[in-house]
Amino acid sequence: MKRLAALALLLTASAQAQELDFPAGYREWIHLTTGIDMSYNPTFFRLGHHMFDNVYAEPSAYREFLKTGTWPDKTQLVLEVRMGTTEGSINKAGMLQTGEPMGVEVHMKDATLPGGWGFFGFDGQDKRATIMPQDAECYACHRKDGAVDTTFVQFYPTLLPVARAKGTAR
Amino acid sequence: MKRLAALALLLTASAQAQELDFPAGYREWIHLTTGIDMSYNPTFFRLGHHMFDNVYAEPSAYREFLKTGTWPDKTQLVLEVRMGTTEGSINKAGMLQTGEPMGVEVHMKDATLPGGWGFFGFDGQDKRATIMPQDAECYACHRKDGAVDTTFVQFYPTLLPVARAKGTAR
Repeated sequence: MKRLAALALLLTASAQAQELDFPAGYREWIHLTTGIDMSYNPTFFRLGHHMFDNVYAEPSAYREFLKTGTWPDKTQLVLEVRMGTTEGSINKAGMLQTGEPMGVEVHMKDATLPGGWGFFGFDGQDKRATIMPQDAECYACHRKDGAVDTTFVQFYPTLLPVARAKGTAR
Repeated sequence: MKRLAALALLLTASAQAQELDFPAGYREWIHLTTGIDMSYNPTFFRLGHHMFDNVYAEPSAYREFLKTGTWPDKTQLVLEVRMGTTEGSINKAGMLQTGEPMGVEVHMKDATLPGGWGFFGFDGQDKRATIMPQDAECYACHRKDGAVDTTFVQFYPTLLPVARAKGTAR
């Protein structure tokens, strides 16, 4: 009976980890970096627009990273994609961000998931997203090249020195 | 005597507003936007590098803006400039941010200043900066083209709709 109860608990946890609510407050989280038209995000890149990628970390996970050089369980990192345009107000060159997000993706650490992390993609007004299947290319790429615990800390200028100092960057 | 005391207070306040401490925690403030190679920042643009501009608002000022559509006294906005590079880890296209900030500039609202705002530029390890003279080109440009109270809210995708809703954007 004990084993059955434990199995039931595990199944419930696993089922919960398959869906995620939209991270409503993420624009008030900690900004880690912004890139433009980076090619490790091929889905958006193929659209032929210019795209900024803004990355945010949930504040308590960020503070834990500052202390330890790695992410605690339930960490959420958000990748927000916004259109880049040269046209806007007085701007004459370069690019600025404009309009509504074109997509929001969450990378969540969860010990109940295979590999310990899940990706969730939100389009438009999605309030809830289903986990991306484990054969989605984001998983393989993050596992192969993420500097810290399958995350791209090599692209986060304020966190890379922390990871190096703590010896957690590979 | 009362008028002399008032004058002395005003002079002290004015002298204080001429210098500013480095905003040490600004990377944990609210991210407003990031642009790249935008030409309303001509000093950096002329260097021939690619430059990202990250903009942050002090959290209490940001929250006040959400309520009112404008900035309270003592608001600090930070413009951080970082080098853009195509080379880094697995990146194959586009640009990412790297290294230490190349410059940090603060735009501070202060009722004791002529025009109500001051600019302060920090280079390298500067702990304190002196206010930029009122004939610096940033003042004229922000006054002429800033959408809200001499600030470039037209470039902040999450705040522009707030300013429009509150009727504070021109």
